[in-house]
Amino acid sequence: MKPSCISLITDFGLSDEYVGVMKGVIASINPHTTVIDITHHIAPQNIIQAAYTLWFSYAYFPQNTVHVVVVDPGVGSTRKIVALKTEKAYFLAPDNGVLSLILNEHPCTAVYVDRSEFFLKTVSGTFHGRDIFAPVAAHLSKTRNLYQFGSTIPSTQVVTLSNPLPYIENDTLFGQVVMTDHFGNIISNISEKDLDRIGLANGLNESACIHIKDKRIAGIVGHYGQCKKGELLAILGSKGFLEISINCGNASQEIAVEIGCQICITKNNDLTK
Amino acid sequence: MKPSCISLITDFGLSDEYVGVMKGVIASINPHTTVIDITHHIAPQNIIQAAYTLWFSYAYFPQNTVHVVVVDPGVGSTRKIVALKTEKAYFLAPDNGVLSLILNEHPCTAVYVDRSEFFLKTVSGTFHGRDIFAPVAAHLSKTRNLYQFGSTIPSTQVVTLSNPLPYIENDTLFGQVVMTDHFGNIISNISEKDLDRIGLANGLNESACIHIKDKRIAGIVGHYGQCKKGELLAILGSKGFLEISINCGNASQEIAVEIGCQICITKNNDLTK
Amino acid sequence: MKPSCISLITDFGLSDEYVGVMKGVIASINPHTTVIDITHHIAPQNIIQAAYTLWFSYAYFPQNTVHVVVVDPGVGSTRKIVALKTEKAYFLAPDNGVLSLILNEHPCTAVYVDRSEFFLKTVSGTFHGRDIFAPVAAHLSKTRNLYQFGSTIPSTQVVTLSNPLPYIENDTLFGQVVMTDHFGNIISNISEKDLDRIGLANGLNESACIHIKDKRIAGIVGHYGQCKKGELLAILGSKGFLEISINCGNASQEIAVEIGCQICITKNNDLTK
Repeated sequence: MKPSCISLITDFGLSDEYVGVMKGVIASINPHTTVIDITHHIAPQNIIQAAYTLWFSYAYFPQNTVHVVVVDPGVGSTRKIVALKTEKAYFLAPDNGVLSLILNEHPCTAVYVDRSEFFLKTVSGTFHGRDIFAPVAAHLSKTRNLYQFGSTIPSTQVVTLSNPLPYIENDTLFGQVVMTDHFGNIISNISEKDLDRIGLANGLNESACIHIKDKRIAGIVGHYGQCKKGELLAILGSKGFLEISINCGNASQEIAVEIGCQICITKNNDLTK
Repeated sequence: MKPSCISLITDFGLSDEYVGVMKGVIASINPHTTVIDITHHIAPQNIIQAAYTLWFSYAYFPQNTVHVVVVDPGVGSTRKIVALKTEKAYFLAPDNGVLSLILNEHPCTAVYVDRSEFFLKTVSGTFHGRDIFAPVAAHLSKTRNLYQFGSTIPSTQVVTLSNPLPYIENDTLFGQVVMTDHFGNIISNISEKDLDRIGLANGLNESACIHIKDKRIAGIVGHYGQCKKGELLAILGSKGFLEISINCGNASQEIAVEIGCQICITKNNDLTK
Repeated sequence: MKPSCISLITDFGLSDEYVGVMKGVIASINPHTTVIDITHHIAPQNIIQAAYTLWFSYAYFPQNTVHVVVVDPGVGSTRKIVALKTEKAYFLAPDNGVLSLILNEHPCTAVYVDRSEFFLKTVSGTFHGRDIFAPVAAHLSKTRNLYQFGSTIPSTQVVTLSNPLPYIENDTLFGQVVMTDHFGNIISNISEKDLDRIGLANGLNESACIHIKDKRIAGIVGHYGQCKKGELLAILGSKGFLEISINCGNASQEIAVEIGCQICITKNNDLTK
């Protein structure tokens, strides 16, 4: 038996039986697959957070993992369900933009998932995680045959987020907050490559000035120890993206940011400006 | 090696080592079984919520799954432990009513679990999840032999909940709240079949009037979109039972219901009555 | 394929992708190992709580389990990483004292983990759980060869906690709070053996007087039922250590203790003293 792996990202939380029931369905169809929870604590219906969580995670999983995202404000409506195949993995999600960053980075084969013979016999109007996503993921982990689940579509037809990737205007780099974590770190969508584009090479440039809400931060540090306790700092985090943190503190509580909040960066650390 | 599966429902939460230790015990005895968490967030010692969580879940698990429920206010007292076998699955729980709904629906074989050779060598007074339930479940998942764990009893001897199933009095259907979920949905024990009994066929009848606390809701909708945002609605949820929800809102916070709260339904939508 | 098991203790919480990503890395290297979460809710950077959680858990896991503790305030600094082998299991953790209680109890073989060929190719400054602990644990679960990961050191060289084990001064036994649980139980590091040392044989002696903050508790009970509802009590808990609880209540909320809080016990139940 070839080992196989399914990962789950949802906004279901862990207090109800929903996630366990999805795993029951998966085990009924493919008892040999390993199911790994990435997180079930996506903020309710927050597609941006789910998209970035997937993007920050998938590369660390085994080849051919089936990544399932059930953050699905349109459940029960006419929204479609898509499955993608890249060189590295499979992806299964509602067609609502949650796979944007994968599509952006990889050549993909895409299908609309609409062959109901792979669904549970009764499909409810509100819990497609159990009735469609779990059984399709389990079958996909067994057969690795994307085409059996529906008709192939051009990957350009898959819905993508309108939220922009970081961009430059008037020498200012504009990005956004895509999540905050358990430790209070504020995670942006700004990568080292983006910083390079405005001449902040290797991400450690002291001349960066980061603006978030009414705060300004001078410079990007290499490690927390370069700042005093309690001080706001900017750092390239373990995901490879710029994070705003407080040394021994909780930045997301201190600044009270929301997902989607703008971050802008100029090459200039004159805080008196 | 035949695949086997054990599901867990407890009120232990996930912040302590309790659930992990149960899984350590299981893996020590049957390293090949798949353990699936249904939930560990049952309200402390809430037998009704645990009973319904099990009932809403078990049908989605593999044939012969061993479902373990450790919600056990009587741990350390003289309460007994029971194991059931139905056509579909095995069930292991304290004999406190938590298996009522399974017993109600299925012909069962039942045993009192009292053969201490299947327990851990030292049995504490407060953590039978680790010392009795985990090792017995692991052995049961391996051997599928119920009879080795104790003496057979008539299944009518197993303790059942005194909380009634929905009933009709004076043309009014009386049910109760059995749980609330992460999204704020209020889940009742009233099924479509119950609604039929007072002539509210197919559960979509506009002439239903639902009373919960000081609120009245007119009609049962087919999907959330039939109501305005922020409005209370009644709907047949994904579990097949009547739920009270708010379109884009949190009904259980809004109404502040407790598990056990009465819901009554009349065939009449004259809200001025 | 020999079954193998990895347990995880971290302070990462479950809301982010961190734990899932560690499991993805493990599954990429050893897809056949069973990963069991002990807890991810250690209070941020609380080494004492992590040390005791491990100590209360490891004996219940399969022989040769690899226990991984990632509670790591020094990540990115020059702190080392250690791996231990005892007769029962393997242990992998930052060299910060979190393995003290294991070292205290068992003869160990110890190595500094520094062979980077077992790490991920890129090692971040902030997430060694993903980049070092997960891949090393996965390799160790496969090969069970401690020596390949770095140079052997005397186990006396491994960092230990300065927090003392219980000790006796002037006929008083001094211990401390090492965790509180989901049910509000306050767990101490005082074992039955410690109680014996001041003549409180078999832990049930009515002549014990327990002091915690401004409270005094007379006697150690055998089960909750010996006290009235709402009353503070002392009991030998399922971990084998003295716990302070409230029958049908939440002692840790009532007394508002912190981890590290002192508990002292005298052989004397004259509460008027």
